[in-house]
Parts: sequence; structure tokens; C-alpha cells
Amino acid sequence: MSTLYLIPVPISESAMHTLPPYLLEVLYQLDCFIVERAKTARHFLKAAQHPSPISSLEIVEMDEKDHREAEKCLKLAIASGRDVGIMSEAGCPGIADPGAHLVGLAHLAGIRVQALVGPSSLLLALMGSGMSGQKFAFHGYLSPKRIELGKDLRRLEQVSMQQDQTQIFIETPYRSQMVVEVALESLQADTWFGYAQDLTGAAEHVRSLPIKTWKKTPPEPLGKAPAVFLLFRGKQALT
Amino acid sequence: MSTLYLIPVPISESAMHTLPPYLLEVLYQLDCFIVERAKTARHFLKAAQHPSPISSLEIVEMDEKDHREAEKCLKLAIASGRDVGIMSEAGCPGIADPGAHLVGLAHLAGIRVQALVGPSSLLLALMGSGMSGQKFAFHGYLSPKRIELGKDLRRLEQVSMQQDQTQIFIETPYRSQMVVEVALESLQADTWFGYAQDLTGAAEHVRSLPIKTWKKTPPEPLGKAPAVFLLFRGKQALT
Repeated sequence: MSTLYLIPVPISESAMHTLPPYLLEVLYQLDCFIVERAKTARHFLKAAQHPSPISSLEIVEMDEKDHREAEKCLKLAIASGRDVGIMSEAGCPGIADPGAHLVGLAHLAGIRVQALVGPSSLLLALMGSGMSGQKFAFHGYLSPKRIELGKDLRRLEQVSMQQDQTQIFIETPYRSQMVVEVALESLQADTWFGYAQDLTGAAEHVRSLPIKTWKKTPPEPLGKAPAVFLLFRGKQALT
Repeated sequence: MSTLYLIPVPISESAMHTLPPYLLEVLYQLDCFIVERAKTARHFLKAAQHPSPISSLEIVEMDEKDHREAEKCLKLAIASGRDVGIMSEAGCPGIADPGAHLVGLAHLAGIRVQALVGPSSLLLALMGSGMSGQKFAFHGYLSPKRIELGKDLRRLEQVSMQQDQTQIFIETPYRSQMVVEVALESLQADTWFGYAQDLTGAAEHVRSLPIKTWKKTPPEPLGKAPAVFLLFRGKQALT
């Protein structure tokens, strides 16, 4: 019977040390991959020193709008008892990335699914933020427009207070600096706000402070790296 | 300047292969740890082959109700520029586990915080469930009582539909079987329900199906291992 493996991918070749040994062992045994982007997947497989010639591996791209080719590949693999690996461009497949649809199909087909341990910027950001990890919610992207973003942030602040829940979201890199500015304008003094960038990379950093402290020492400009943002206004917030 | 490292710990000594090499490199350089339970931490440090005699390491327990000793340890370390590692009993410190309070203090003190990649049952369960990872919420524990649990599950089902958000929760092992029973009674036919147990362990498994499918082929009794539960009734749910 096939197993569908979910394989986290590091953000760059210089972060291969974040992959646990058993992930590489599984990777080396696979010759069929369904991936977010074939070019990135080939680079990763080469950097991970997959023992087979990369050109001999079956690598099929997922298309979020048209699942047919990836589904066909998965169904053929299941029919022949072949194992398959799913990989996104970086991070964990299915977490703020494509892949979940195929995992659902695998469960419906009754095959084994195994997610492997690896880097997730959302999880690392939450751990590193010092905000509560007892309850949390990830929202994906908020509004890209300044005024609506302010409203979104105040709404999440209310939810955080009512549910005692850390709120996590992401934004495209070129809007990161705007998110910080709007957060400092919109959130209340005792609300914690934080961001993490380049996690597991050379410029890795996570910053997290109450808004009143940010206002005294504003953060350095965020630059154009992807960022994870967090806010918390729950019972256990330090003041 | 000190760095505060957040160090994930595997669920057992037989899951050491889930730790990435750079985590061990960091671990070997540390001689001061603030931990959920000293006994477990010593076992882990021994299994991880920490180069120093375990008795020579400073290991201070966190007490969720009384933070004073752990805070004192962290403040002394910061004052002397010493690095500190935080470890919970298993999994990621601060995620459904203690540790976040100390991370908040570290940010207030302006020292560097770095979360390391390692096993998280919540993240593995979400990846493996095939439910949406574009938006999700973790709620900790729901009600331990049967009738209230049914209400909680129906409420989360509503939230999942309204927010297009996967709902994740945990329960103490001896109530796992009840959660499955109540979910099958309470949730609607097209809602996906899943559970994961012993992730990264020898009996690792994740099962995830629509309620109508579960009703035709009910799950095997869950046994007394800790479980992560998930439900999803969003737009992208397979039917």
C-alpha cells in the first residue's frame, strides 16, 4: 500500500541543517513527487543529495486551480502501491501552502499519510514571539489596504482578548513595513505585537513587544523579506 | 549578549531521529536549561549525548503558577551574557506547553530569541489531516463533559464554516474515545473530522474523513495515547 509523505522544505540551500535525518532517509527512497514548483523541487532534491539522477525522478506540479494532473499522478501511484512525496516551495506542505487537497484524497482512498518534521515559519514565529501558544489562530492574509488593515487588526485584537488567543497572519514582503506602521497606529498600548523574518536563515530574527514599548523604540524598517506577524491581548500578556 | 533558545523535544528516546542536526549543535553548547520537568530533561540530554556530565548542567524547572525561580534563573543568565535553553516535556516549548512567559521576558530584556525546528504534534496533525492549512485555530481543551463537548463541537463547526478555518483541539488520553463518539453524533455529514496519535512514534497514525464516511466505517478504538483532533467544514472541503 502506498504512503503519502508530506515533506517540509527549507527556505534555502543554506538551511539544509534544519532537516532531521529521518526526513532525508524517507526522501532518498522516493522517486515520485507532487510539488508546488518543479524547478525549486529539483534544486532541493539535488541539494539534499538524492541518490538518483534528478532527471529520472517523476516530478509533477500541483496547480491550485486545476487539480487534475496532480490527482491523476496520485491515483496512478496509489493503484500501483507506489509511495509519493508532496513538497511546497518552502516550509510545510498544506500549511499556508498547497497540498491539503491531495492529502484529503489520500485519506478518502484509504492510504497511509505521514507528515514529516521540518521547518515551519508559522510555528517558529509563534514559539519565538512569547505570545500564548495555548490558543492561537492563523488567518493567512489580512486586507492589503491601509484603512481596512487597521480595522482587521482591531478586530483581531478584540478576538484575542475575548478568546485569549494569539492571532497570526502573513503579508507579501513589500507590504511588511506598512503592517508595522498600521499596527503601531491601530493597536492598544498593552497589546503585544511581533514579527519574524528569515526564520532558519542567516538574518533570522523575531521581535515581540507591547505596543507602548514599540512606540518608544520603533522597529527598524522590515525590508523586503517575507514576514510572519503576531498579536496578543490575552489574560497572560506581560505588561 | 545572551540568546534564549526554544528547543523542541521528541516524544520519546526512540524519536531522536526527528531532531535536525543544528538543534543538537546548539544543545551541546548550552549548560543552562529552564525546563518543564527536570527528570525528563535530564533523560533527553543524556539520550541526545550532551558532551557535559548531566549533573554539571544547570537545570531549573518552570512552575506555571509560580514563575519566580525560572525568572530569577533567566535574569541571572541575561546579566552574565549566558545562553539559556527552554525545553518542555515533549514537543515545542510554548505551544500547548509552558515557556511563553519566559520568552516574553527575554523580549522585554532585549536579548535574542531563537526557536529551533523540531517535532510539533499540532503541526504534524494539521499537515497530515488534509484539512485546510490556509486558516486554522487551535483551542487547547474543549469541555470534558459529553453534552457540553457536543455543543463545543457544533460551535467549532459553525466557526469553521463561517471563517473557512480548520479547528484543532486536544484532550486527555482517557477521554479520546469519547471525543470520537461525540463528534460522530454531533457533527454534520459533510464535515471532516480527524485525529492523530503517537506522531513521530512507532504507532504514528493520522485518520481524517467526512463524518458520513466515518459513520459507514467507524474508527478503531483510540486507546490511551494522547491525540490531536481536527475538524473542517470550509469551502474547500472534499465531499
